[in-house]
Amino acid sequence: MGFLHEGHLSLVDRCRELSDYVVMSIFVNPLQFGPSEDFDHYPRNLERDLDLAEERGVDLVFAPDDRELYPGAMTVAVTPRRLADRLCGLSRPGHFEGVLTVVSKLFGIVQPDIGVFGQKDFQQAVLIAKTAADLNMAIRVEVAPTVREPDGLAMSSRNEYLSEADRRRALSLSRALAAAVRAFQSGERDAGLIRSGVVEILEAAGVEVEYAEVVSADELAPVERVEEGTVVVVAARVGATRLIDNVRLGRPDRGLAELL
Amino acid sequence: MGFLHEGHLSLVDRCRELSDYVVMSIFVNPLQFGPSEDFDHYPRNLERDLDLAEERGVDLVFAPDDRELYPGAMTVAVTPRRLADRLCGLSRPGHFEGVLTVVSKLFGIVQPDIGVFGQKDFQQAVLIAKTAADLNMAIRVEVAPTVREPDGLAMSSRNEYLSEADRRRALSLSRALAAAVRAFQSGERDAGLIRSGVVEILEAAGVEVEYAEVVSADELAPVERVEEGTVVVVAARVGATRLIDNVRLGRPDRGLAELL
Repeated sequence: MGFLHEGHLSLVDRCRELSDYVVMSIFVNPLQFGPSEDFDHYPRNLERDLDLAEERGVDLVFAPDDRELYPGAMTVAVTPRRLADRLCGLSRPGHFEGVLTVVSKLFGIVQPDIGVFGQKDFQQAVLIAKTAADLNMAIRVEVAPTVREPDGLAMSSRNEYLSEADRRRALSLSRALAAAVRAFQSGERDAGLIRSGVVEILEAAGVEVEYAEVVSADELAPVERVEEGTVVVVAARVGATRLIDNVRLGRPDRGLAELL
Repeated sequence: MGFLHEGHLSLVDRCRELSDYVVMSIFVNPLQFGPSEDFDHYPRNLERDLDLAEERGVDLVFAPDDRELYPGAMTVAVTPRRLADRLCGLSRPGHFEGVLTVVSKLFGIVQPDIGVFGQKDFQQAVLIAKTAADLNMAIRVEVAPTVREPDGLAMSSRNEYLSEADRRRALSLSRALAAAVRAFQSGERDAGLIRSGVVEILEAAGVEVEYAEVVSADELAPVERVEEGTVVVVAARVGATRLIDNVRLGRPDRGLAELL
């Protein structure tokens, strides 16, 4: 969706390791925003994005306008029939249908061999990987690590919305995940206890917890016992801004490790 | 879905005109049958199909089993959000989602440049063409004419189900469409009148009309005035067998023309 930050640009680096031709799409997709969401105000800066993409070695930027992707009424959609009834899907009905539909369109247009998506949007990455597999697309989907600010905040175009005070409160998300990692490293395997620790840190910081769950990476289903690869996912409102973050227990997360 | 007849094989002929490599898929897709439908009894004869395909010049037959196309629970589906709430979609909820999902999978696997589908399943052909367009698939979808028995009956694997008496009653579908063509040729442009004539012939033959509509070819929407290309679509139960047929007014339909 553009308004590029180091998270996006790290995906470019990964693409360049994997491929000799890198295409970036920049498109703020109306289909994946709800009527009360921030489509109109979502930050955009195409000029700056093009400069950053070129500097980083992108070969081609595809930045269509709405009429190019949606010239008429859409008849079909790529619809999640499972795994979208939870986490972000609960508060954003229709969001993942919008995401999967536009990603399928972009895949159709660009015909990439490999698609690289960021782990920050974990549920999205899982659903896109399942879409490619279920629809037998000849595309390998790879998930690249979340990139964090020096203080741990996961990079997101929506961080732009945060006031200074909210920016400080927002740090509770990465701190809560770091606490979960610490608990796991100390041998804790009870998902309920790990979850309570996360919720406690978020609530103490005064952010409005939308969800905090400990789930399996493949099915996004709550687990009772955690193991390596189990995901801790959080979403919270910080002031008017909705932020999400996650960590996979026992897997490297550079920016979080530095908080431990 | 196999159990090949001359309708299918005419698609092969068209493919060979268009391309130097022809792939045929044969797969009775469980996803597109309702729980009370004829999935278990749908006629199958792979040995014979392979012989016929080879004779006709098919280069490759892809005949997967269920586990090959559906190795696990599907997470996503290709879902019609318009145009499936009418005609066959009314009596077959979920049918077109099953069709569009399996066709998208087959497109993903085979990666054809061109896909050829039969006009007999008109609503299906429209939805597949819109799927390819909406999802920006690099596939041209072509619709080839319905092939008819010498007495006008549209070829269908389900004709196999008909008793001799039902087979005679089933002729009312093509006779009704021929009457619509005749009316159009005589200058009739009132869709309501054309439709009544069709219904009358079907009811007189004692078949149970599921629908008989006069619709636009692109939007499958009922029209008041017909023009060249307008579609007359019918579905009826003949005994226990559900049959469909259609004609585009003012366009050639060889088997029907011979009934005029």
